[in-house]
This record gives sequence, structure tokens and C-alpha cells, in this order.
Amino acid sequence: MKQMEVSRATMGRIPIYLKYLKETNHHAENISATALARALGLGEVQVRKDLGAVSGAGRPKTGYQIQELIAALEKFLTNDENSSVVIVGAGKLGRALLDYSGFAEYGLQIVAAFDIAVSETAYSKTGKPIYAMDSFAAFCQSHAVRIGVITVPAPNAQEVCDRMVANGIRAIWCFAPCTLSVPEEIPVQYENMGLSLAYLKKKI
Amino acid sequence: MKQMEVSRATMGRIPIYLKYLKETNHHAENISATALARALGLGEVQVRKDLGAVSGAGRPKTGYQIQELIAALEKFLTNDENSSVVIVGAGKLGRALLDYSGFAEYGLQIVAAFDIAVSETAYSKTGKPIYAMDSFAAFCQSHAVRIGVITVPAPNAQEVCDRMVANGIRAIWCFAPCTLSVPEEIPVQYENMGLSLAYLKKKI
Repeated sequence: MKQMEVSRATMGRIPIYLKYLKETNHHAENISATALARALGLGEVQVRKDLGAVSGAGRPKTGYQIQELIAALEKFLTNDENSSVVIVGAGKLGRALLDYSGFAEYGLQIVAAFDIAVSETAYSKTGKPIYAMDSFAAFCQSHAVRIGVITVPAPNAQEVCDRMVANGIRAIWCFAPCTLSVPEEIPVQYENMGLSLAYLKKKI
Repeated sequence: MKQMEVSRATMGRIPIYLKYLKETNHHAENISATALARALGLGEVQVRKDLGAVSGAGRPKTGYQIQELIAALEKFLTNDENSSVVIVGAGKLGRALLDYSGFAEYGLQIVAAFDIAVSETAYSKTGKPIYAMDSFAAFCQSHAVRIGVITVPAPNAQEVCDRMVANGIRAIWCFAPCTLSVPEEIPVQYENMGLSLAYLKKKI
């Protein structure tokens, strides 16, 4: 499966397909792309393309076997090896992300946060640990952490990024308004809240 | 100026140009797109295109008059009339956004938050008010609020959205993982944190 070719828009619809397939009382063992499209108010071509990319084509006439399709969609979202995620920066945004429940539907979980201002381990509202930075290296290694989220202020972001990379983190999600220097093979995704809001404003 | 044609990528670079132009000690009154591109590590074509879209072309040989360019870039970011923004949902994410300092560089400010769980006005860490929902309609009208940010749980998002639209809000930034029904003329920008992280993971 060439997962890199699945678009962000397709990925965004996978939880919608899954929710419908798992929560609806189906009267048959199979479902067609046509029926799925109609039930979800989506275009049939789009549904065929989405499912084709993730699970292969349905059978002519019968469509998809529902349980197999559920398994394929779930596998697509969660099949990677370890996908532990940690946050550095346990301010309001860091804590909001730490306790955010919307990652689970993508098979992801943020396992811990770290903060330079923490000296003794603290716990978030949902009970997730917030550790001192001292234990960052050991934690990343013992938990095979592969994704790091940066929610520190911009002037501290590069230093945090360097520590993440040095400790085996292979992808970075950056909320600090800055540009990070990283080795070429490390993807960085920036969330620039100021820009997002400014862009929305220009659409009014 | 056809502002809608300015891309999100261009908008993202405007604060970078501004910061450089305002903070660097320039030895001349003018700066060329070439010099600006070199100083910022950007492509010359890109810089010309960005500045052309926002401020018009520079003069042949002399380039841009620095103070005029600063004024044009600032005007682009802030020239709209009132741009008050309110948040509904003062949980961790709502409060994080309320106190986030990165909106100012785009000439935006979130003026208040509202929450159904608040009965007496509370204040965020930076002193911004968090009001009870009772005062939402009156506040929106008296402050001519045009942008609403939704940070309530998904099941409550549509109701909040409807109240926003009913009270004159003309653009919505939605952090709840859901799809909103809005009148056609109201732009909605979704931030799906689960999807963003899942998409990053697929790049590893």
C-alpha cells in the first residue's frame, strides 16, 4: 500500500467511514461504495477513490465486505509500529493537546509532556504525566518516541527541536511561530495559529 | 488591492519581512527585492511576487522605499475595520488561544471568551474576560464582533455556531472535530488536530 499517496482530505474522511460502518446496524454483510456515498452525503467517485487508496477496490456487484473494510481502515490508521508522541512545553496549549481526546480516532496517543518549569512529576487533568526535562532523553529512548510536539515559546523552540532529534524523534509538530532547522529526513509540520486566523479574516 | 489573491504562504511571510525591515539597521533609505531575498534566505522571485501582491512593484534600480514598504505591509495585515474576535468554550484550548500572543503580529486580537460553565465573569492569565453565555448576544453586537472561534466539544459546536451567526459573526474558526452547517456566505476554517498529527505520522 503506497500510504504516502493518500491525501490529507482522504485521511480526514477515514474516521467518518469507520464511524458509520461500525455504528450503523447493517442489514447485509456487504456494502457498496454507492450506498456508503449516499449514506454519508459524499460523492460516489470520491468514496471509491478513498476506499481504493486505503483498502483496494470493492468486488463488482457486492462491493465491500463490511468487517474486512473496517479492519482495513483501522489498519491504515494504526498499523505503524510504535507511535508514541510526546509534548515539550506544558503551558495551556501543551496541556490542551495532552488531554485532547481527538487523537485516538487516528490511533495516536500523546503519552507524556515535558516542561522545563516542572521539577517534580505533575499530572494533567486526564492523568497524563508531565515530567521535568531531565528525564526527556531516557523517556524518549525507553518508549521509542517517534513524534515530538513543540509548544514552547519561539525563542526556545530550536533547542527543544535539537534535543528531540538527538533522542531519536523522527517527526516534529511545531506550534511555535518560528522556522526550525532540522536534518532533511525529519518532517516538520507547523501550526501557525496567527496565520490561520489572519487568513480566515481575509475571507470575510 | 485584490487581497483575496494573496496566498496563505505569502501571508505567512509578511511578518517575516516586517520583522526584518523594522528591526534591522538599514544603511540606505531603500531596499531591493534582491537584498531582501538574500537577507532572509528566500528566493528572489518569491520576494518580488510577495511584495508585488501586497505593496506594488518596487522602483527600477532603487527598489522599495523602506518606510513606505513597512507601512504597506502593516496596512495589509491590519487595514480592515473592526476585527474583534471572540471564543466560545473556555477550556484549556480556548484559554490557550485567548492568551496566545501570536495574533498581534497579524493585527488581530481575541477580546473575550464565553463559556456555558461560567456564571460570574472570570479572567484569563493575561487578564482577558471570560463571560457567561448570557451576555454573548449583547457583547457581539456592542463590539461588532466579526469572527468567532469554537472550542467547545463537537456535540455542542453547531448550537454555538448558530448563535454566532445569529449575532452577526461573519467567519468561524472551528476546533471541534465536526462539520458545521452555515449560510453559504460564512467562511468556516476547521482545525482538526487529530488529522494533522495523523498526517504527520504518515510522513515518517
